[in-house]
Parts: sequence; structure tokens; C-alpha cells
Amino acid sequence: MKLSTASMMIVALVVSPLTIASTVVNTSISAEELKAAQDAWGKALIQISSANDKGGQKQATETAKQVLDQAYGYKHGAVLFKPTLTSGEQTFRTTYDGALAYFVGGNSKFPNDSGFALKGWTDYKYENAAVYMNGDLVLTTGKVHLTGKDGKVTTVDKTWGFKKDDEGKLRIVLHHSSLPYSSN
Amino acid sequence: MKLSTASMMIVALVVSPLTIASTVVNTSISAEELKAAQDAWGKALIQISSANDKGGQKQATETAKQVLDQAYGYKHGAVLFKPTLTSGEQTFRTTYDGALAYFVGGNSKFPNDSGFALKGWTDYKYENAAVYMNGDLVLTTGKVHLTGKDGKVTTVDKTWGFKKDDEGKLRIVLHHSSLPYSSN
Amino acid sequence: MKLSTASMMIVALVVSPLTIASTVVNTSISAEELKAAQDAWGKALIQISSANDKGGQKQATETAKQVLDQAYGYKHGAVLFKPTLTSGEQTFRTTYDGALAYFVGGNSKFPNDSGFALKGWTDYKYENAAVYMNGDLVLTTGKVHLTGKDGKVTTVDKTWGFKKDDEGKLRIVLHHSSLPYSSN
Amino acid sequence: MKLSTASMMIVALVVSPLTIASTVVNTSISAEELKAAQDAWGKALIQISSANDKGGQKQATETAKQVLDQAYGYKHGAVLFKPTLTSGEQTFRTTYDGALAYFVGGNSKFPNDSGFALKGWTDYKYENAAVYMNGDLVLTTGKVHLTGKDGKVTTVDKTWGFKKDDEGKLRIVLHHSSLPYSSN
Repeated sequence: MKLSTASMMIVALVVSPLTIASTVVNTSISAEELKAAQDAWGKALIQISSANDKGGQKQATETAKQVLDQAYGYKHGAVLFKPTLTSGEQTFRTTYDGALAYFVGGNSKFPNDSGFALKGWTDYKYENAAVYMNGDLVLTTGKVHLTGKDGKVTTVDKTWGFKKDDEGKLRIVLHHSSLPYSSN
Repeated sequence: MKLSTASMMIVALVVSPLTIASTVVNTSISAEELKAAQDAWGKALIQISSANDKGGQKQATETAKQVLDQAYGYKHGAVLFKPTLTSGEQTFRTTYDGALAYFVGGNSKFPNDSGFALKGWTDYKYENAAVYMNGDLVLTTGKVHLTGKDGKVTTVDKTWGFKKDDEGKLRIVLHHSSLPYSSN
Repeated sequence: MKLSTASMMIVALVVSPLTIASTVVNTSISAEELKAAQDAWGKALIQISSANDKGGQKQATETAKQVLDQAYGYKHGAVLFKPTLTSGEQTFRTTYDGALAYFVGGNSKFPNDSGFALKGWTDYKYENAAVYMNGDLVLTTGKVHLTGKDGKVTTVDKTWGFKKDDEGKLRIVLHHSSLPYSSN
Repeated sequence: MKLSTASMMIVALVVSPLTIASTVVNTSISAEELKAAQDAWGKALIQISSANDKGGQKQATETAKQVLDQAYGYKHGAVLFKPTLTSGEQTFRTTYDGALAYFVGGNSKFPNDSGFALKGWTDYKYENAAVYMNGDLVLTTGKVHLTGKDGKVTTVDKTWGFKKDDEGKLRIVLHHSSLPYSSN
């Protein structure tokens, strides 16, 4: 956290207008913090797509590394990541390298990865079906809608787990994404 | 918890005006819930004192049992309870019987207990020096002021730990109380 | 954290039988408790299938209700449940009725549900790709293999969240299941 | 919960070496980690006393700063610290400076502090009356015995709260210490 008393009081004010003490430490995730983290994920995906448009895979990779460093919990341990388009032995991307390969491709160890974030995404929306708030760990499940360059919308079923770290930053520690079931 | 969707939404509304999903489960303790639990502790102490005035130790004991059942976590395991006026082998009251003896006396196994709650308390105030909110477990430390029948105020240093149970009720699982240090 | 597998096993080996106090309350989930809960899920699925063989949908429904009561967290609030074969408006089964309909069908409000647990499952195996233990909430992600009557094995990608309740029982509060991605 | 001591030890014995996944992140505090942190506190106190003997208050202060940096949670927010020998407005030491002044004195803002750690402590023992393990936050209460240069033993009633940080290190976030109650 490394929160000064001042910044902690701001946290307290967001959580509640009720003053319970002059000094409050709060490791639990608030609704506002959750919303900011969910908003940020889509923004980051579009940023990587945009970097790819401007500077190609190399620039997209630099941006993706920043996103993974900032938004995911690989530094604090493994991430339970099941991306939308992976399968077989490489279904789960519990390591940083596996996640990076999924988003931007270019890793010969993951030959089936073409780079999910390079698909030219331009817009992002999500609808939480339900949220489970458990202190410093919050779970969400719902629909995520991504708009491509051609305006076509791709919808996925997505479950996230966000963990609040010592600096008060939310990090993704769980991410299961899947294409909607089709009986056809 | 056993919360219906309706009651859960009320919880969500108290926590934040932000709507993050139509269904939200929240196991974390809010500032409002903490305040209610701290207010209730003093009210309960005065209730036991009042029951003693009306019906003597027997009635006070019935009231104290209700308070322990409602406000403390003995049913869910042990409570880390160091009351103000205990010492030696009987300093820590980790069992229900030990806590009851402290509050209302009358237990030959705890011969030094005269019944802290029987002292005719009429008023209660507390000042949190600091609060640590960690999901379903919240810690507080500060001064507690109790007013006796004669108007004399007794001040103690008190640390509490409150745990939110499955029904959403806060229970005391930690309680360390001590008289202020005096160099005399 | 940042634990290698080797260092984690060393940690595990020294965890206990250390006596830290005569009275210990522990709300965290252990590896043994997690394994028991994951084993129980498959056993329960096969039980429902078996009940269906013996007594048809009616008996399967009774068994499924017991399973949902025992193994899922609907009583304590909503469950973040995305079953394998659901879609559209009915993708997420955050209510007890929605979950029951998915497992045994027979609910006109969920017309696409034919009863996943009625498919005659005879065997169950799982492989955790990664586990995230966070106190009373543990997350797993990995492959689950189900064997049907004809010996055919169906594999799904499954993410679970288990929560330990006040009685020390693990309950599923998160369950995202999906068919493996196929590029065809 | 509602665990007897016997059943808890059985649980402890079977905790592991169970392999639940090749990758496991565990943010919960183990019994071993707790013991190490409680052992370390006394060792650190004796180190400060020893530094004082060798290099006076200046060297003791350097050592005390290291101890506070390593063992307490001030960097991550406030600590709920009620030291044994403080009173009045300065009873609670929620800031780093207040804690440092208590241990080694020499701060004009805390004129009553003579430096608790400078008292020449040579030995340390503790007895936990009860322990409450709640994921990444563990609470203990019990007796602590400190031996001075003259061999005299001082006993205090002490409640601790230890929090596991992102690096897996336990930090004191709660510390309430008090002299035993005396009816004299």
C-alpha cells in the first residue's frame, strides 16, 4: 500500500462518508476500484491493438508487456489464465511468457498464437452477471463485447478474479474466457 | 449469509451508490457495519447492568448469555479475549464459560470474577485510534469510556477484532482490554 | 510468493505438526480440503446420473437438490456459475433454480436445458493447471475429463472458486466451464 | 470450525505433502510462518538492547529502524500499536515515528518515552493462549516473558496481528501489550 494518511483518507471517503477513525487501512476492494479495473482491461486491449497499427508487432509487444506488468498478477505468483482461443497442452497460460504470447504472438514456443490483441479492437463493453466480493479478492462473471475494425462485435463469456496488492492496485489473478456455447 | 437477492442489493447500496452487477455478494465488512457492532457492544453492556438492577445476577446472566451468543464468536470457535480485570492462569477467556463468568460472575471455577457487567454502567463512548479493514475481519484499537452509576468515568485501552459470519452478522473474535498504564 | 514448485513443497512439508497454541481457529482452506471438494464434485455428478438410471428424472432431481445444497453456495448468496452448455440470456446460472435446471432439466423457464447430469456419466478425473489459495477462498483452473456410458471421454476447461463456510465446509461460489476451443 | 485440539492436530498432520497442482500460489499464513515471526520479535528486541550496550542510543536507533522496517507494517499503512508503557494522548503509536520513539526514546515529541528496548533485555519467551488464523491475517493472544539484565522476568499480556505481504513476509499490523491486572 505505502499509503500516506492523506491517501488513505481518500480511500475511506470513497468507501463511505462515515468516519470510523482518523487512520483507516482498508485492504478490501471497493465497487469503484473494481469498476476501474474492469474498465482498464478493455482500454488496455485497445491500446495494444492501436500500438500494433502504429508500430507493428514490436510496438504492440512493448505495450502488452506494460499491460501485463500493470494489470496482471504474474509478479506476485501465477495467474489462472484460460484465454478464449487456446487449446490442448497450451490451454492455460499460468506464466508471463504464455500470456504475452497469447496477446501478441511471435513466440515460437506457442506456435498457435497469432496475437489476440492484434485483431484491431476498437471498442469494449462488459456486463457483469454477478460479482462476489471477498475482501482483497473479487470475482466477476459476465459477458464481454469487443468490436473489431469492421464493426463486427465478438462476445465472450468471461470470469475474472482481481486481487488488491500491497500498493492498493488491483491485479488479475484469474481470467477464464470462452466463446459462447453453440449447439450447432 | 442466506441473503436473498433483495437484501444483497441493499447491502450493495449501502456500500456504494455504484451498481456493478444486479447480483452482488459481499463478505467484506463496511464502515457502517463496524460502527453498528461497536455501538452495540456498549449498549449490550448497559443492558446487562440494567438487567442486574431489575432482576439481580440471575437475570443479568440470562441477558449476558444472549449477548455472548449474538455478539461474540464462541459458536464458530474460540475467541481471543483478554478482559480488563483478569490475571494469572485465568487471564485469557477463550471459552464461552470463561467469558460469561467475567461479565456476570457466579462461577466457582473463576473465583476472582465479581462480574464486570454488574457494575452499574450507564453510558458508553469509544474513540478509535485506528482501524484495519481486512475483508471479513476488521481490527480496531482505541479508548473506551464507561460511566458508572455515580457518574465516574472509567477509561480502558481496547482492541477488537470483528469477523463477519455467513449470516452477515459481525462477531467479536478478538478483544484485548487493559487499564491505562500509570507510572505511579 | 514467487514460489517455485520445489520451494512450495518444502514449505508444505514443514507446515505442521507444529503446535502453536492449545486453541487454534483456522478459517483458511487446506490442500486436503480442496482435494476433497474437487473429488466430491465428480462423485456427485455420477450420483445424479446413477439416480437417473434408477429412478428417472424425479429421483435425479432429488439427488441434484442435495448436491446443490451441500456443495454449492446458493444459500449464502449467489453463485457465479457459467455451465458448459448454456448460452444467450440464460448463460449464467446465479440462482439455485437455474443451476438445478442445468443439471437435471425439467424446468420450462429454461427450455434449452436437457439435464447435463442425466447424460450417464460413469467416471471423472481432473487436472489442476494452477491453484490460488487465498484464505477461505481458493481458486482452481484446469481440465476436467468426464466419461460417458459408451466410454467416450468429454474434456472441458473448468475454473472453480471454493469458499469455506462457518461450519468449515467448502462450497462452490464460482464455476466457469467451457468446451475446449477448436479452430475448425 | 468448532474444532477440538485433537481434531485440529489431525488436520495439521494431513495438510500436506499433498500435490494439488504444479503451480500453487498461497497467500495464507502457515503455523511455521507464524512461529518464525513470533520468534523473530523477541530476537529483534534483544538485538536492539544489545546494540544499545555496544553503541548507545544511536546504534540502538539504527537497529530499531531496521526492525520496524522489517517486522512491522508501517510502510503498508498504519499499525494498531498500543505499547505496554504508554498513556494519555500518546497511548497509541499508529505511526512509524511513534513506534520508534517508544522502542528507543530520544524524540522530544514523545517526552515520556525512555526507550523500552533499551532496558537490557536478554531473554524472551511467549505462550499463545489462542491463535486465530484468517488467511493472510493471523491473530495471537497470550503471555510474553522478558528477562532483564538482572535476571528479573517481566510478563505482559500481548495480542498480535500478523499480515502476510506480497513478498510473503509477515508484518505486525496489530500489537496491544499491557501489564497484568493487579487488584492491589
